[in-house]
Amino acid sequence: MRFRSLVETNRSYRRFHESRRIPMADLVALVDLARLTASARNLQALRFSLVSSVDMCESVFPTLGWAGYLPRWKGPEPGERPAAYIVIAVDRDLTSEDWGDHGIAAQTILLGAVEKGYGGCMLGSVNRERLAVVLGLPDSHEILLVLALGVPAETVVVDPLPDDGDVRYWRDSAGVHHVPKRELESLITVRFCDETTTE
Amino acid sequence: MRFRSLVETNRSYRRFHESRRIPMADLVALVDLARLTASARNLQALRFSLVSSVDMCESVFPTLGWAGYLPRWKGPEPGERPAAYIVIAVDRDLTSEDWGDHGIAAQTILLGAVEKGYGGCMLGSVNRERLAVVLGLPDSHEILLVLALGVPAETVVVDPLPDDGDVRYWRDSAGVHHVPKRELESLITVRFCDETTTE
Repeated sequence: MRFRSLVETNRSYRRFHESRRIPMADLVALVDLARLTASARNLQALRFSLVSSVDMCESVFPTLGWAGYLPRWKGPEPGERPAAYIVIAVDRDLTSEDWGDHGIAAQTILLGAVEKGYGGCMLGSVNRERLAVVLGLPDSHEILLVLALGVPAETVVVDPLPDDGDVRYWRDSAGVHHVPKRELESLITVRFCDETTTE
Repeated sequence: MRFRSLVETNRSYRRFHESRRIPMADLVALVDLARLTASARNLQALRFSLVSSVDMCESVFPTLGWAGYLPRWKGPEPGERPAAYIVIAVDRDLTSEDWGDHGIAAQTILLGAVEKGYGGCMLGSVNRERLAVVLGLPDSHEILLVLALGVPAETVVVDPLPDDGDVRYWRDSAGVHHVPKRELESLITVRFCDETTTE
């Protein structure tokens, strides 16, 4: 798959074919992708917890907040919940700072997941204390992000931002999830080119 | 290219064939990849400055710090300096928080660059005030990361972490850049699988 197609297919999926489980070996291979990415000062302070079993998925699920812009939707129903999780933590014994390593790792994992036919969502609304207990994490590990994974069971489309500039995603009557994205030109502040590199 | 190969090829390159310039259209296409990525609360608060001209590259270069672990190397010499930059800032009028969006965007851009035959490096050691002046950024924009880009002119290899646990990258007598990466198993804190998902 060309890289742009991978990026386009990598939407934030929140509903899955829960019965289609993900082998642990796939989760390990995804972490190995993250292992090979850039890390600030090459500290490599991120640590990963891998959950593929049905019972532990059930324990992780209640620690997560879903889709803040869909207040009437309490998250995926049984049968459409994630089939696996990768929980990204940082070992505070190694660093007190976060330079963006977790974003680098999370994006790399999700792009790799899409290539394997899965999809997922980065969740930042997490009951971190409770999830750390569920996973039995060491005290020095601080949870930064949870990646929910599975075979997607929903359609997600990218729309232009509406005229009123509302960035909130929404779901239509057919259940299609719409994500407004800003126009390309609005993201570019300045550009400097010359004869050699002109567009 | 398979995604894992893309990740493996995407090393942090700091020396380039400076004369091989990057068309502005390529930089714009890379920002369009970042535009399509996940964004916390879908705020899409990142803003991008694109530099491909020789003279502006010369103005950006002195604002950057290079390779903290190579104290005797002051950065790439003329002729091997970056051929372009993408400067990632956040618009503080939109958010006061950084959830990792810049890591997501930076990694996506660099992976896209590798597919196009370029390579680059995320630089966090930046004279932000000076660079903001050089680029003429609005006061509300805070620079988070600089991506240095070009056609790589160095070999970068991933090594196992040495026994003493030293994470510092180093350069051998042949000029090959070595980056020690932790062993996969050391990054995985816990794993939970069952009969269906066992390895």
